[in-house]
Order: sequence, then C-alpha cells, then structure tokens
Amino acid sequence: MMQADALSDLIARQRPNWSLEQAFYVSPEIYEIERRGWLARQWYILGHVSEVAEPSSYMVRDLLGESLIVVRDASGTLRGFYNVCRHRGSRICDKDGRASNLLCPYHAWSYRLDGSLRAAPAMPEGIDTRALGLKSVPVREVGGIILGSLTADPATADPIQRELEPGLRYCGFPQARIAARRRYPTHGNWKLVIENFIECYHCIPCHPEYASVMRHIDVVARDAPAAAAAWKEEVERWSREDADTGSPLGVAPGVFSLPICAATRAPIGGGRKTQSQDGQPVAPLMGAQRRFDGGASGFRCEPFVFAVALNDYGLMFQFLPTSPELTDVVITWFVNASAGEAEVDVERMIWLWDVTTVQDKAIIERNAAGVRSRAYAPGPYSLLESWPSRLVARYLRELPAHVAP
Amino acid sequence: MMQADALSDLIARQRPNWSLEQAFYVSPEIYEIERRGWLARQWYILGHVSEVAEPSSYMVRDLLGESLIVVRDASGTLRGFYNVCRHRGSRICDKDGRASNLLCPYHAWSYRLDGSLRAAPAMPEGIDTRALGLKSVPVREVGGIILGSLTADPATADPIQRELEPGLRYCGFPQARIAARRRYPTHGNWKLVIENFIECYHCIPCHPEYASVMRHIDVVARDAPAAAAAWKEEVERWSREDADTGSPLGVAPGVFSLPICAATRAPIGGGRKTQSQDGQPVAPLMGAQRRFDGGASGFRCEPFVFAVALNDYGLMFQFLPTSPELTDVVITWFVNASAGEAEVDVERMIWLWDVTTVQDKAIIERNAAGVRSRAYAPGPYSLLESWPSRLVARYLRELPAHVAP
Amino acid sequence: MMQADALSDLIARQRPNWSLEQAFYVSPEIYEIERRGWLARQWYILGHVSEVAEPSSYMVRDLLGESLIVVRDASGTLRGFYNVCRHRGSRICDKDGRASNLLCPYHAWSYRLDGSLRAAPAMPEGIDTRALGLKSVPVREVGGIILGSLTADPATADPIQRELEPGLRYCGFPQARIAARRRYPTHGNWKLVIENFIECYHCIPCHPEYASVMRHIDVVARDAPAAAAAWKEEVERWSREDADTGSPLGVAPGVFSLPICAATRAPIGGGRKTQSQDGQPVAPLMGAQRRFDGGASGFRCEPFVFAVALNDYGLMFQFLPTSPELTDVVITWFVNASAGEAEVDVERMIWLWDVTTVQDKAIIERNAAGVRSRAYAPGPYSLLESWPSRLVARYLRELPAHVAP
Repeated sequence: MMQADALSDLIARQRPNWSLEQAFYVSPEIYEIERRGWLARQWYILGHVSEVAEPSSYMVRDLLGESLIVVRDASGTLRGFYNVCRHRGSRICDKDGRASNLLCPYHAWSYRLDGSLRAAPAMPEGIDTRALGLKSVPVREVGGIILGSLTADPATADPIQRELEPGLRYCGFPQARIAARRRYPTHGNWKLVIENFIECYHCIPCHPEYASVMRHIDVVARDAPAAAAAWKEEVERWSREDADTGSPLGVAPGVFSLPICAATRAPIGGGRKTQSQDGQPVAPLMGAQRRFDGGASGFRCEPFVFAVALNDYGLMFQFLPTSPELTDVVITWFVNASAGEAEVDVERMIWLWDVTTVQDKAIIERNAAGVRSRAYAPGPYSLLESWPSRLVARYLRELPAHVAP
Repeated sequence: MMQADALSDLIARQRPNWSLEQAFYVSPEIYEIERRGWLARQWYILGHVSEVAEPSSYMVRDLLGESLIVVRDASGTLRGFYNVCRHRGSRICDKDGRASNLLCPYHAWSYRLDGSLRAAPAMPEGIDTRALGLKSVPVREVGGIILGSLTADPATADPIQRELEPGLRYCGFPQARIAARRRYPTHGNWKLVIENFIECYHCIPCHPEYASVMRHIDVVARDAPAAAAAWKEEVERWSREDADTGSPLGVAPGVFSLPICAATRAPIGGGRKTQSQDGQPVAPLMGAQRRFDGGASGFRCEPFVFAVALNDYGLMFQFLPTSPELTDVVITWFVNASAGEAEVDVERMIWLWDVTTVQDKAIIERNAAGVRSRAYAPGPYSLLESWPSRLVARYLRELPAHVAP
Repeated sequence: MMQADALSDLIARQRPNWSLEQAFYVSPEIYEIERRGWLARQWYILGHVSEVAEPSSYMVRDLLGESLIVVRDASGTLRGFYNVCRHRGSRICDKDGRASNLLCPYHAWSYRLDGSLRAAPAMPEGIDTRALGLKSVPVREVGGIILGSLTADPATADPIQRELEPGLRYCGFPQARIAARRRYPTHGNWKLVIENFIECYHCIPCHPEYASVMRHIDVVARDAPAAAAAWKEEVERWSREDADTGSPLGVAPGVFSLPICAATRAPIGGGRKTQSQDGQPVAPLMGAQRRFDGGASGFRCEPFVFAVALNDYGLMFQFLPTSPELTDVVITWFVNASAGEAEVDVERMIWLWDVTTVQDKAIIERNAAGVRSRAYAPGPYSLLESWPSRLVARYLRELPAHVAP
C-alpha cells in the first residue's frame, strides 16, 4: 500500500494547469486509496425514482465494486443498504424486486425494509440480533434522480438538491419514464473519463455530430473571440425573445465561469428545437415546459452527477468507477410518463449522445493506452480545458486527507 | 508477503464461533501462506485405483497449482512425483498413460518409475545424476481411493486409513469402476466451499431435492427437538431391525458429535433404498453388501476427504483449492466393476448430488461475492453450523506454525 | 519492488552452467527490473525497410509494452518515437500510414516528422512548445532490417551493423519484399524462448522435420564425435568445391565457438538447394547470389536479432518480450522484390520454420508450466547447450547494473 510520503511527493511534483502524473491514472494503490476514501464519499447517480416506484420495491445496483440495495419502504422512504448478509456475508438480492422483507437465500436470515434483522433460525443464546442489521449507505432523491454514496455525509447532498432540484422538477424528471438506457464500459481511469466529459477542446476533431448540432461549439471548442461574441449575442437575443420564461434556470452561453455544482440553460442554436439530427422534436413536451423554445438545460455537480433536459426529453449520465482502469458509463433517456410509445422516436432521441459517447469511449481508451507508457509525461491544459484543470486541482487538494499517515 | 505480526493480529481479532475475518477468504497473501504450508500438508483425493490399475500405468493430476504424476510401478507400488523435469523444468507427461520409463519430450531425459534418472544425453563430466531424480510427493491408497499431498508426513495418513478403509472395502470401492465424473469449478475460497459442504443449515432454503430425499434433515437442518427425537428413534429402529449387519460401520443419526475423521452409517429414511428420486435402485448391489437396507455410509476426514456409499453406488468428492478464489469440485460415481452398462442408470444415479452441487456452486459464489465487500463482517455461526465453526477454529490454531517469523 | 539485496542473493545462489533460479523465469518484479533496464537497452527487430519505403510513411509497432512510431521523413531519414501525445498522453497513430505531419486525433495537436510540435490550438501564454516534441527512441537500419530499442546507446548498434550488414546486403535483404509473416505468441518468459532458439539439444526429440533437413544436426544436436567429424569434412569439401565465392561470409560447420554477434554460412547438406521439404528451390535466386550452392547464411546478435538467408529466400525472427510470461515470436519471410507471385511457392517456403516454430511454442509452454512449480530447481546444461549457458551468464553479469540500490 502506498505510503502518505510517496503520495505527498507525487502531489508536490504536480505542475499547476498540467495534466496529472501517470500514477494517478494507472496505479492500483492510488485507486485503492481513492476507493476507500475520496471516491467513497462522492455522490453518484444510482437510478431514477421510477425504478423503485412502488412501496416495498427495491433495486440492486453496483457502486465502486459494492452491490447495494436501494429500497422504498412501505411508507415511501428510500433507504440504501450493502447487499451483504450479516450472517456469513452472502449476497441477499440478485436483481430488482418487491418484497415485504429482504430474505437471504443462503440460510434464510430475513431483514425488515429498515434493515433490521427480523429472523435468524437456530441462533445460539446470547447473540444480540439488534447489532446484526444490514449496513446502510446514504441515498437521496433529487428531482427524480436517486443519488447514492458509500460514506458521504448526507448534508453534502443539500447543495446538490438546492441547485438541481427546481430545474429537474420543472423539466419533468420526477414524473418521467425511462425511454432508453445504454451502457458504455470504458477502459480508462475514471479521471480520464470525467476530464473528457467536461471539456470540449476535443469536440471539433472527435465529435462532428455534436459540433453540427450544438452552436455553443464556438465558445467551448474554439479559441475564436469573434465567433464567441456572435454566439453570446445570439444567446442574449434568445434569452430576451424566445426563451420559455417559466424555467427557474438562468441562461449561460457556455462559458467556463460556472461553479462545479450548477444548473443553467442556453439555446441549442441554429433553429433546432431539440438535440435531434434535423432539430425537430422526438417526443411530446416534457414536464412543465409549455412550448419548444429550443433550449437545453444542463445540470451538473462534479465529478459524477450530470443531466441534460431538452424540451421533449431528458438524459442522465452515470459515471461509475469500477477498477483502476475501467469506468462504467451509462446514459438513461427520459420522456414524460404519459408519453405513449408511438409518440416517442427512440432512435432519433438517442442519436446524438449515443454516437458521441461511442466516440468518447474510443478516445478515452486511446488516451488510457498512451498514459500507460513510460513516455507519458503531464502536458499543459489548453485555454479550453479549464474545467479538467479545476477538477484535478480540487482532487489533489482533497486526496491527502484520505491517506493513512 | 504478509508478516507473522499482521497474521497474529488478524487471528487475535477473530471472535470464537463467528465466521472468519475477510482476509482469510480473499487475501492472496494468506492463500500463499496456506498453499506453501497448511494446505500443502493436507491430504486430498487424487483419484481411484482403477485409474492406475495396470503395472507401469500413470495418471497426471493437478494439486494446489502443481502437476503431479501418480505411477504404479512394475511391482504394483504407487508413487507420486512432481511432473517437472530435473533438467530445465519441462512438464514430462501431458496425460494419463502407460510406459516403462517416464520420458521428458523436451531433451529426452528419462526416468525410471521409482523416479531415478535413467538417461540424460550429452551430460558434462562431474554431474551427479543420482541427485537428479524426480521429486516425490506422498501418496496413499485407502480403500481404493488414492490420496495425495505435497508435504504431509506419511504417518498422518494412518488414522485416515484406519477409520475409512474397512468401510470403503466393505462397500466395494477397491473393486469398483468409475460410472460418472462431473466437475464444478467454484469461484470462492476453499474455506467457503468446505464450510458449505459440512453444514446443512442451508439445506432447506437451498436444496429442496436433498431435503426431500434425506430424512436426517430433521436433525442437521432444523432446530426442531421433536423432529430430531423422532428421527433418532427411527434410526435406532432401523439399526435394530433393518440394517445390514455385515457393515463394519457404526450407526449415527446425523448428529454433530462426530470427530473430524470418521465413517458411520444411517438410513436414508422414508423407505428409500438408495439416493435416487424415487428411492429405487440404480445399479446392482455394490461390494460386500448383500441386500438393500436403505443405508447411507459416510466417510469423512476434514477438510478434504469425503465419500459416500449407498447400497448400489458410491461417490467420492474432491475439493481442490486452485487459487485464492477458485476451488475445483469434482464428484466421481462408482459401481461394481462387474456391473454392466445396462444395469446402471447413470442419470438417475447422479441426479441428487449433481443437482445439489450445482446449487452449492451458485450459493458459494454468491457468498464469495458478498465476502469481498467492505461491508462484510464476521457473523455468528448458528447451532447447526458447529462443524464449520470447529473447522475454522482448528485452522486458526494450526495456521501460525506455517508463517515465516 | 524487489530490492537490490534480494536480487544479489539470487544471483549469488546461481550455479554456473545450470539453468536459472525460478524467479528469473516467473517473477513480475524481476521482469519489471528487466523491462525498465536491461531489456530496454537491447536492440530488437522492428520491421523491414519495405514497410516504410516511401518518404513520409510510418509504421506503428509494439516493443516491451510500448507503442512506437517508426517514420521515414521526407528526406529519407528513419526516426523512432513513442506513440504518445505530449498534451494529455493519447495514442497518436493506430496503424501504419503516410502523412506529412503526425496528427493526434484527440485534440488535434500535430507534430512534424522530426517529432517537433507543429501546432497546439488554444495554448495559454508561456508554454514552451519546443519542449513538447515527441519523445524519441533509437532506430537503425541494418541491411534492410529495422532495429529499434527503447534506451540503447546508438553506438551499440555499430558492431551489429559491422557484422551483419555485408551479408544481409549480399543476400538481398535491402531490396527484398515480404512474402509471408506468421505470429507465434508464446506463453513463456523471454529467456525460455531464447534459450530454446539457441540450442539444438532438443532438435532430435522435438523437430523431426528440422532434423531431416539440416545436416548440421550431427554437430549441434548429438554428442557424436564420429558424425561430427564427417560433417566437418563435408563442410570443408563444400567450402572448397561448391560454395558461392561471392559471399562475404565465412564458413562455419555449426560449432559452438561463434561469438554472440556473427554472420556465417554452411551448407544445408544432403544435396538440398534450400530449406524446403524436397530441397528444391521455392523462389528465384535472391540478392547478389548467382547460383544455388545449397548454403544457409545465419545472422545472429544475441539475444534478440536473428535472420537466415537461403539462396532463394530469407527469414527474420522477432522475439518480443510482452509480459513476464508472454513473448511474441514473429517470423517474416522475404524474396526478391522483383520475384513475381507465380515464382514463389509460399507454402513450401514457410514449411520448415512454421512447423518448427509451432513445435517450439508447445515445447516452451510446457517448459514454462514446469518452471512455475515449487518443485522446479535449476538443472545442468548439457554439452550441447553452451549457448544458453553463455547467454544466462552474461545476463546475470549485466543485470545488477539495472537495479536501483
């Protein structure tokens, strides 16, 4: 196991605004430190309220190599537990379900939905069964999205809720249904995945479809002041003349001054009503939105919580570190629960982010391959990579607190 | 490599009659200590005498990551050797065979069946070829079953032979033929596999077929005094009235007072003649047994030697630790060598233990998955798990002797 | 990571003229020391000039877990670079190609063919782009064969060039075309692969085809003085009467006195014109050779550079350590660039070395399996294994310089 000294040396060597030293991207020892400490206390998207809609329903999800059970008890409260029997450690649930108790299939120990041990056959005298309840993890519902963590202080979800809940509600996430879900297991350290997701410096070389749809490309993907000024002007005009005034979100033209936890909106641009290839709707209006104003609402709380809402559909992005060099990426698309199958064109809806994420998987895997080389050395972040640079700085500031001295 | 100190701390932390600390189930370091020490000196079932019946025949078997050659020399003596040439280390034999010498296919070094080097072409002067014989391992035939070990003191096989040989002979193992063999590679530490095999606390939730066949379920799988008393009475009646009096084995109703190395018998119960779905025979009477008395003879020497004999067929169970989290489980079914193909209903014969072992593989793998969790903590063994509890206590007592200080 | 002390102990334990201690064949720690030090500074065959024939063409090749780009610039100079972008470490090239600049597909950084950074969009002020060129590796063309290394002093390629270039040129390697290439990934440490390649003690038991073709078998594969004397006489007669007098190579009858870097020739023997099953040509005369004299020219520079030339075709052997227990073996067969498809019988050409290398792969993998055993112990090299013995001695002499104290 890496010593605190060795880690301090690595951090001291780090050059500000340059990419990370190799060990942070490849070392199993550093990943183990992260997994037990810094990663464990982050919030992740685990699912959507529609996945545990009914009282006594539960879902089984993986997080940081752990299997978790998220259960809605009979009173409607959400709870999270490790999927590990307190007897000899067996997995309790294999898949989502509904039950009044959680029954371990190995030796028939059963647990109430609040996690307490209900029955354990043939126990010897003197065992305190009150101490043998399921171990819990914090979970939180934010605007229809279920967040979970292994060790986060629940209070740290308050700012996420404050920033993201109003917009998610306005855009209809709590009452939505899942229209599609795709998985993109990506062979690269989670930092390579997140750095890639929060910069658009690569958008023009790598994402022709995205660049053709999103007009904010002139600001986030180019160092082109004239184009940026023109785009800002267009955004201002849109904000004054076209934008749905009911949205609780402020308008941001895609600049880099946003805080790490924020919800804002901006037009897609180019006359597009939604993020489809031709710009035409793919589903009925979603949530409280009353007309197609061509806006895109962005919800973000670095490093792992991201969602997007268009006028007619929403997406949430799950980034789930799985091992030092594997990260699961899952995208879920939502529409109004009331939208009929025939009203939703799934293929046109998933087109942009599916093609873009397939590209990102390839890019990140090529990045990961190069980062393993003895020739890899940190390089300078460009002017268009201020978000990765900020994330890396914050990570390096916070990590040492998680290393045993 | 784990230090003696760290291991002592772990052992000191262990709570009596509670399952093991996580490291004992998952740590590659502890497995390495076991593999070089405690596991190396245990006895394992390697095969059956019919597999090396002829003089000069040999079989090639894996044990603890080693390939071994078990050879019957021209005089009929069994010997065991590492399958490693003393020249540059090549494997010598790929599969079972028969030969007057063991010839390494790489550079044509050859060995006599007593392991001594017979010929090595173009050796320089001054090489003492007497020091270049195959390295041997202890093997022992016990009632037709071939036991082997890497480093056991041969004398430690004497009690196994004393306890198991008479019954195995009476039940016909030495003259049997193999009727079927099935493999169940199980992704879990060997201790999870053995603990599962030697407790029946899980039998009712997990093994409906086994529970429907074996009437001792009332004693070994339930904390139900009335049912246990009834079963004891039935066993006593059977012992007085029905049981084959020729058997050298004592009758035990399935209680937990048996020593770790023992052979006993009891009725299957419910009027069943053998362990088949309908209780009817699947093969001719085996060995010296002269009628169907519905008895099941059990042969056990913890942790790795187990066999069962019914009136018409026998089974031996191999449990072979392969890596920290993989254990090979192999079951071999036997019938009289004289039993014709048409007299043996193989599918009905293997039914019970095949279905049960497939279930056990799934159970153990779910247990192994949970044990890897950061939420795993040892739990209390029930009253019906006294054998795992005893095994674990013995293991913890013996293990420290195998750690370098 | 292994300490210098532990390695010194291992080396001190090593018995001269006996095979290596187990750790040298299996230890990931020793492989890591080798990979960063001793292996990194060796020369390897990366390819052939025909693979980067045109100005501005490049090839992408793996070496010791690194991806390298070998490029021929517009002026015809060969250069080698790590395939790692200096920005954030992405792979730059996926496969062979031709381009006036090397463009990283991630963020469009581009490099000139001399490795210098040409363009990096949106760089902040104050970045010294002259320090952000591609990291280079030494490459060298020797008689049409492209050698590369990670850290070799370029001057160490001079003796290879001096010894091998004249013969390779005479035999036509620089103007050859690739007629066939086969890969034989071999699951064994690179030392097992090379030891096997440089001894013929195993040729009679393992390679009946090779033994039937190559008459020098009497010297290199048998301790048979009379046969050896007869073969020497035949070689001398061939040298006087039959041998092409234009060749710059001296004649050697296959004895063990050759230095580790040498080029020599000898007859195949038995009236064969080339290394085909019937001894008849499989392609037109190659290079400057003017008639079929039945000679075989051998080019060797231990441990990794080997080639063979017959009158009508040539071969080069690549041995590429990939991980502690995996070595890629690649054979490439050459004929004159001017030889038409119809003039070359590829199947007859590759027959001998394909069948022999398939056999070697199996042999080495059996050797590797045995070497992993706890029963493995070094054994004595025979009189016919003086080359492996010499290689091992040199390796042990040189390795300690590469260990951090």
